[in-house]
Amino acid sequence: MTQSHALDALIQSLRRLPGVGVKSATRMAFHLLQHDRAGAEQLARALEGAVRSVHHCARCHTFTEAEVCSTCLDPQRDATRLCVVETPADQAALERTGAFRGLYFVLLGRLSPLDGVGPQDIGLQELIARASDGVVQEVILATSFTAEGEATAHVLSEALQRRGVRVTRLARGVPVGSELEYVDLGTIAHALADRR
Amino acid sequence: MTQSHALDALIQSLRRLPGVGVKSATRMAFHLLQHDRAGAEQLARALEGAVRSVHHCARCHTFTEAEVCSTCLDPQRDATRLCVVETPADQAALERTGAFRGLYFVLLGRLSPLDGVGPQDIGLQELIARASDGVVQEVILATSFTAEGEATAHVLSEALQRRGVRVTRLARGVPVGSELEYVDLGTIAHALADRR
Repeated sequence: MTQSHALDALIQSLRRLPGVGVKSATRMAFHLLQHDRAGAEQLARALEGAVRSVHHCARCHTFTEAEVCSTCLDPQRDATRLCVVETPADQAALERTGAFRGLYFVLLGRLSPLDGVGPQDIGLQELIARASDGVVQEVILATSFTAEGEATAHVLSEALQRRGVRVTRLARGVPVGSELEYVDLGTIAHALADRR
Repeated sequence: MTQSHALDALIQSLRRLPGVGVKSATRMAFHLLQHDRAGAEQLARALEGAVRSVHHCARCHTFTEAEVCSTCLDPQRDATRLCVVETPADQAALERTGAFRGLYFVLLGRLSPLDGVGPQDIGLQELIARASDGVVQEVILATSFTAEGEATAHVLSEALQRRGVRVTRLARGVPVGSELEYVDLGTIAHALADRR
C-alpha cells in the first residue's frame, strides 16, 4: 500500500496485536516512524526481551522469569487456599486488597468455545492436579462475573467437585459505596438470595 | 505490577503506541506471550527493519526506503501539478481513483497547535520551496475536510498564494451515491454555493 516494504511489513505485524485493525496499525506505524523512533526501538527490545525471558510459573502458570514465581515461593502464604484467577492483572487486584494470603492459579484466559479456547488451554488438568495435591483444602474461583467468566467457573467447579475438592466462589452482591436505587436488578436479586 | 520485569517493560513500551492505555497494553502483552510469540518476534523484527530502512523521500516527504520515492521518479507523471496530502494513506486513496497523474507532497501530519504541531512540523518551508521551483503550476490542497485539515489547508493556501502560487482545493459537495435527504446541511450548502 505504501512506498516501502519495511513500512508495509510493520503495519502487517502491528495488526497481530489484539484489537488493532489496518487503520489503527497504519496510524501506529506512521506515529512511530514520524514522531517516536526511540519508542519503536524500545518496543522492539521489550518484545525480544519478553519473548526470551518470560515463561510460565511451573506451579501457578502466571508469567514469570523464574522457574517458580515469587508468590508461589513465599513461605508466609497459606498453601491450603488456592485462588483461581483469569489473568495476572486480576491477581494483582486481589493482592492489592490485602484480604487474601493464600496462593493462586492463573488460567491466563477463560473458556470461550467460539474463539477455540477449551479446558486444556486454561490448564484444567494442571489445576486439578494442583488442587488434588493433598495440601490445598479450598479452591476459590475468582474468574470474572461475565458470561464467559461464569461459564469457566461452572466448568472448573464441576470438574473439581467431582474429585472431592471444596470449591467456593467470590460473593456476588451490591458493590461497596453504591446506592441501592442505581444497582442493577440482577445484582440486587443475587444479594438478596445470598444475604447473611 | 506483574511478576516479571520484562513483562512490565513490554507493557510500558506498548503504551507508547497511539491510542493504547495501560489496559490495552496489558491485554496486548498477555496475548502475545500467551498465544502469539511468533507474532511478537515478527513485530520486533518489523520495528527494527522499519526504523533502520524507512526514511523520508527527499522530494515529497513520504516514507520510502530510497533517497527519492518511485512516484517522484516516475517520468510519466505531470510535474506541473502538486497535490498536498496529510498521509501516505491519503495519497494511496487518491492513487486508487486513477484521476490524478501529477506529483505529491506528503505533510505527514496536520496543523494542531494544541498537540504542538506547527507549520515547521508539516514541512511548510519545504513545500513553499518545492512549489516555487518554476515547474509546479498548481498546488492542489487535499487535506482532510475536518477542522484541523481545513485549518491546515487555510494556512498553506495563505502562505503559497502570498508567493504567487496558484492554489486549488478539492471540491466540497454531495458524495456520489447519496440521497440528498440524508446529506448533512453544511455539505448541501457548500454544494449549492459551488454549483457548476
